Amino acid sequence: MPLIVQKYGGSSVADAKKIKNVARRILKTKKRENRVVVVVSAPGGTTDRLLSSAYEITAHPSEREVDMLLATGEQISISLLTMALHSLGCPAISFTGPQVRILTDMAHTKARILSIDTKRIKAELKKGKVVIVAGFQGISQEEDITTLGRGGSDTTAVALAISLKAASCEIYTDVEGIYTADPRIVSFAKRLKKISYDEMLELSSLGAKVTQLRSVELAKRYNVRLHVRSTFSNKEGTMITEKGLEAPGVSGVTYDKDQAKITIQSVPDRPGIASAIFNKIAKENINVDMIIQSASLKGLTDLSFTIAGTDLKKALPAIKVITKRIKAKGVTSSKGVAKVSIVGVGMRSYPGVAARMFSCLAKERINIEMISTSEIKISCAIDEKNVRKAVKSLHREFGLEK
Amino acid sequence: MPLIVQKYGGSSVADAKKIKNVARRILKTKKRENRVVVVVSAPGGTTDRLLSSAYEITAHPSEREVDMLLATGEQISISLLTMALHSLGCPAISFTGPQVRILTDMAHTKARILSIDTKRIKAELKKGKVVIVAGFQGISQEEDITTLGRGGSDTTAVALAISLKAASCEIYTDVEGIYTADPRIVSFAKRLKKISYDEMLELSSLGAKVTQLRSVELAKRYNVRLHVRSTFSNKEGTMITEKGLEAPGVSGVTYDKDQAKITIQSVPDRPGIASAIFNKIAKENINVDMIIQSASLKGLTDLSFTIAGTDLKKALPAIKVITKRIKAKGVTSSKGVAKVSIVGVGMRSYPGVAARMFSCLAKERINIEMISTSEIKISCAIDEKNVRKAVKSLHREFGLEK
Repeated sequence: MPLIVQKYGGSSVADAKKIKNVARRILKTKKRENRVVVVVSAPGGTTDRLLSSAYEITAHPSEREVDMLLATGEQISISLLTMALHSLGCPAISFTGPQVRILTDMAHTKARILSIDTKRIKAELKKGKVVIVAGFQGISQEEDITTLGRGGSDTTAVALAISLKAASCEIYTDVEGIYTADPRIVSFAKRLKKISYDEMLELSSLGAKVTQLRSVELAKRYNVRLHVRSTFSNKEGTMITEKGLEAPGVSGVTYDKDQAKITIQSVPDRPGIASAIFNKIAKENINVDMIIQSASLKGLTDLSFTIAGTDLKKALPAIKVITKRIKAKGVTSSKGVAKVSIVGVGMRSYPGVAARMFSCLAKERINIEMISTSEIKISCAIDEKNVRKAVKSLHREFGLEK
Repeated sequence: MPLIVQKYGGSSVADAKKIKNVARRILKTKKRENRVVVVVSAPGGTTDRLLSSAYEITAHPSEREVDMLLATGEQISISLLTMALHSLGCPAISFTGPQVRILTDMAHTKARILSIDTKRIKAELKKGKVVIVAGFQGISQEEDITTLGRGGSDTTAVALAISLKAASCEIYTDVEGIYTADPRIVSFAKRLKKISYDEMLELSSLGAKVTQLRSVELAKRYNVRLHVRSTFSNKEGTMITEKGLEAPGVSGVTYDKDQAKITIQSVPDRPGIASAIFNKIAKENINVDMIIQSASLKGLTDLSFTIAGTDLKKALPAIKVITKRIKAKGVTSSKGVAKVSIVGVGMRSYPGVAARMFSCLAKERINIEMISTSEIKISCAIDEKNVRKAVKSLHREFGLEK
């Protein structure tokens, strides 16, 4: 008897009508698959509303109390969705994260799951019930309520799929799957039937908003079949598994706007300097994305890197401190930077892919500010205002509409 | 080092400004008393809003899921109030009912508290923190979230005061204490400085909305000093203790509108009949209030009783069934009945109090439809339209404005 874990995002349970729609979908799956565990996010907009009520009280709410507050969002979804299933005559029961002992570390607002006690879930499945679990939340060893951070519900779903040895984990969202490019920009973008974990990881880290990095990492590590589908249609969606597309090559174009670029000028080129700089930035809890170091000239080098545009204000003071300490010349920064990337397994074994990307951008008169590559992607930092043009022409260049 | 339990109702934490006001009050108490445990209700209006979202899904939500849903309301209050205390520099920590193991029976939506594990609360108090506990909610032996029903937060507060051996339990509300009559009707009603548990019990059961029956019962049983005060003023409020007013006599006038009166006509007057009737009604989960049986005539008697007006529709079919079974003649019912009562310890030892009440109503040309008396109160059912007149004249008659 196969077991399916389904996860529904906030937009899928935003109001009573949508909740009833989700309940009907679950019932259909139950009739087919027999055992269903469902993970739900907070109703769309709820988390933002709760957060703003916290900021009405104080500009610096304690993270423990923020978790206490935010965890109410999913608790609302699970109870309403369970009621909707009952009203369809489908036995169902809801559980908060703490109730099914989704044990996490104590890193409030970005906790990591340590273990799940599946005893109660299994007992209720055995009674023929659909089990509805609150996503995004858990309980720490100190018995405090924790939340898992952005995309936490996806992580909950994958972690449950692992613990329960589910046949697959379906991520329901408001898009119909993973596309070769953002369909809002490239109208002729194509849905991918299959994609590999690695490609999906790159797409996630490069700004595709469908699933979150952590959940894909987790799925890859434990080899959980992820299936991205739309709540609002019956399309097949995209399957994320070990092997992606049959043919190696470029499988998608993606972008990430609202980046900032920082350059530290004339950095003394000696061991330990880069580590000093990036340790300082890590201490501020800021993620650095692309890093470029120019060739050394007279023992001095320029070091450029990108961070999220929203982190710039927080990052600059720390960077200025370290610039002084390492006796670099100065710091420049600019906002309005975007990153455009092409992604595909085995891309490296196709010579000339990078060159083709650069010349495609050049033909569109788009200046490349930074380049970074990995086994399965090539990213270019460009001016934000050129994003649409870049994504469209790269999509065409690599024949993704076919 | 005395410990104070304070309870703040939903209207006291309805928005950010009010929450900050409550935080300032708590901080003041903390500076004076050193150890403070606070119980909070859901922000005003939240519970109704949550309930209506459940009814949008289904007309008959499961009680377990309703509890799951409603428990989010207090969880919002405790986190926001704790943030507000932090922003005043006051160490504080929030706990849900389940987190401090407020163990209840499994009667969802009206659970009763069995025990409280105060270990974690005491540990946090020792660290100098104010402990904020969610009212109204607990956890059953099955590890399900339960709620305590109407006035449940008061019950939580009193139960915590008992478990923690608190010096007193302060109930903060939007009125300034217990009055000799509803100040909205009797403008010259006086605030009582002291009142006994028994008087308060009668006042609660007779419709005074300040505190709930169950919490006063609990306070009486364990001799907890209850102190009813306003969140919005510094007035002294009313102390509820073993002994009430010094002088015995009438201490207040109260009323309960929206009652219905039912009469079963020509009931065979033999043992077991009344029990058959009221067992049938109890099975429908309807509370019967006043009961009057007329003198028997030719082995037949009329049986009248009052119930909440909202229960009438539900009660009538059951009553018609039983009427047929016991071969009574028929049933009549009327809505728009009200109950006016005078309350006071030792009232019985003052001869003529009842007579004085009846003649006062007679003077106002108010017809008395039913009478019921207890050790410390006399109630009369009257036409609802005469409530204001009755309460005012009784207040004057017994000199309560002095």
